[in-house]
Order: sequence, then C-alpha cells, then structure tokens
Amino acid sequence: MRTFIVKASKAHTAPDFKLNDLPGTSGRIDLLCRVLNSAFLLSHGFRKNVRVWLSLYGPPNPPKAIRFEGQKMRPKTLNPDELSTAKLIIRALKAAENLREPSKEVEVLPGIYVSNMTFEDIVRRTLKGSALYYLHEEGKPIAGVSFPPNVAFVLGDHEGLSREDEVFLSGIAQKISVGKKSYLASHVVAYVNIFLDSLTPQP
Amino acid sequence: MRTFIVKASKAHTAPDFKLNDLPGTSGRIDLLCRVLNSAFLLSHGFRKNVRVWLSLYGPPNPPKAIRFEGQKMRPKTLNPDELSTAKLIIRALKAAENLREPSKEVEVLPGIYVSNMTFEDIVRRTLKGSALYYLHEEGKPIAGVSFPPNVAFVLGDHEGLSREDEVFLSGIAQKISVGKKSYLASHVVAYVNIFLDSLTPQP
Repeated sequence: MRTFIVKASKAHTAPDFKLNDLPGTSGRIDLLCRVLNSAFLLSHGFRKNVRVWLSLYGPPNPPKAIRFEGQKMRPKTLNPDELSTAKLIIRALKAAENLREPSKEVEVLPGIYVSNMTFEDIVRRTLKGSALYYLHEEGKPIAGVSFPPNVAFVLGDHEGLSREDEVFLSGIAQKISVGKKSYLASHVVAYVNIFLDSLTPQP
Repeated sequence: MRTFIVKASKAHTAPDFKLNDLPGTSGRIDLLCRVLNSAFLLSHGFRKNVRVWLSLYGPPNPPKAIRFEGQKMRPKTLNPDELSTAKLIIRALKAAENLREPSKEVEVLPGIYVSNMTFEDIVRRTLKGSALYYLHEEGKPIAGVSFPPNVAFVLGDHEGLSREDEVFLSGIAQKISVGKKSYLASHVVAYVNIFLDSLTPQP
C-alpha cells in the first residue's frame, strides 16, 4: 500500500475559484489535480494500491482534508485531465461546507472523503499502518532505502513545507530524495510510483 | 541535450477544439500539455537542455509538427497548468493554417515552431545529432543503458505507435523501458528526466 500526503498551504478550502483559471484563483488546486493523476493513473489502468490525502490550508476555511482511497474508488471517477479532477475537489469542498466536527469524514463519492482533519491528524493516522517518508531534495537517495510493504510519503506544494511542519515530521519521518534538484510534486509522485514498481517485492 | 518526440495519432491539427473539454474534443491535446509540463518544468525552474517535438496526426490537416526549443524559449512562456499550455498549441496551429511548404518552420513565439513535417522527417532530423531510443514497456531496462551526451526519446500517445511507425524505428532506435507496466507518456517523461539527472555525466 502506498500513501501520498500533500500539504497544500494555499489551496482554497471552499469552492470559490474559477475552473478556467485554477493557477490564478484556487491557490494551486491545479497542482493537486496533477498529483492525483500521477498517483493513480496508468495507461488504460488505475492503481488500486494507492491512497492520497490532500491537506488544504488556504482560505477561507482551513483545514480541509480530502482522502482518495484507490481500493474503493471507481476507476472511471478519476480522469487524466486537470479540469475533471478539479471538479471532484470542488464536489468535496461543497460537501464540507456545513461540516463542523473536527475528524468526521463525509463520503463524497465512492472512495472519496472530506473532513476538517489537520495535517497532523492525517500524519498520525497514517503512522499507525505505514512507514513514513518526507520527500525532500536533501534527503537520503531513494535507491538506498529499504521499503516495507506499507509506505507513506509526505510532499509539500510549490512553496514546500513550513519550518513548523518539518519540526513535526522530524523523528517520525525519514527524509528521502529522488534527486538533488527541486522537482514538481506531480513529477516526484510519478517517479516514486515507477521506482517502487521496479522493486521486488513491491511496496 | 534531451529530445522527446511524441507521436499523437489523434491530436487535432487545427484549433477546432474546446478548451473546457480537451479530452473530449481535441484528440487528447491534454496529454500533450502534460508531456510538455514533465519535459520542461522544475519547481521554480525550467530545463533549457530539453527539446520537445509534438507530431500531430489527427484531423483535419495532418501532419503538423510543433517544436519547443528549451534553449530559446522564454521560461515564463510555459506554465504548469494544462489550459495555458493548450493555448500555446492553439497559437501554433493557427500559425500553420496557411502553411503549404512541407518542411518550412514558422516561429510562433521565441523557441516555438510549427511546420508540416512528418513523424519520419522529425526522426531523421533528430538522428543527425542524437542517439535515438523508443520508450516501450518491452524494451531494455533504462538502468542498464549507457547514454551519450545527446539523447532523443520517442513516445506514443494513449494509443501507442502504429505497427508502421515501429517498423520505421526498428534498426534506428533502441527500445528501452522504464518498467513493465504501461505508463502514461507524461509520467514516463518525468521519470526519464529525473533518472537522467542522477547520472554522471548527465545527458
């Protein structure tokens, strides 16, 4: 099982943005759409062994957490293009508008859930079943890491994680790297998936 | 220098599609937008050592070839989101509407060129300066390949290359693979870029 957790510090937490200008109006929901594409999609296929948590901290109602559960999603729910994926995120944010409980999840579509969980809530819940890795260019090269069957990866958005988040992760997540350059989150997820596919046994 | 050549068998060759439904109306120009993202973009950076050829064979006026030259493009020209990249492709297709010569290129924007070149024209021109590889799941694993400084990779779209294209490439391109699964073209390009970055010296 592979889990990807993306902390999106500016991603809007209400459906108040324009589909025809995601980069300019949504706090970079477009980036999250591309991460979902990289996490789940194969050519004419779908990775059921993947879970993605989007941890949204932008205006107006942070935090919001959207969980995509590959084992329960209908494969046709997620399509490769950004706009159709952005519509799924909008649907989740709409469903969260009247949600007051701090950790209750609402199922938006089969396998897609929204809640008010914090980034720390998501990480603590993930730690119960998976080894945690923080993907960062200064981490240990991924080729030298020995992965257990259940793995989870934390990534930042275009602004990276805050100092506070990094302090929280130190000690509970191993810092690993796919290279010395600073790569886009969606490229890192695509790389990690293909890299893990090459291991025997695969996480 | 890294060159990526994508043969897009259904991609429209006139700007007759809808930006708000690229997958349904353009013959999968959305896929080409994501390949350009993977080929050129870093987090807050741009790969100047990359060239991309889009070889479009869809209706109504095939073939069209669009060349993106990293060394000459202005980095701000290409943005991460699909819609802004689709607008660049539309601009190129508009510039090609009255182009009759078989191999003349028109510069659409700095570093972006459009022409009526065929897939074979593109491959022959590329062979003059680069070693050619055909990315296919049944090829030799990429980790065992020794790359020269100038490399070029041919990829198919969601339908893959035709039997005719594969016959043309056999003998002039080495078949290599990033894994046994069938991956999306944009994921393969992201993987190849990050993989090549890890080599010393880098292609």
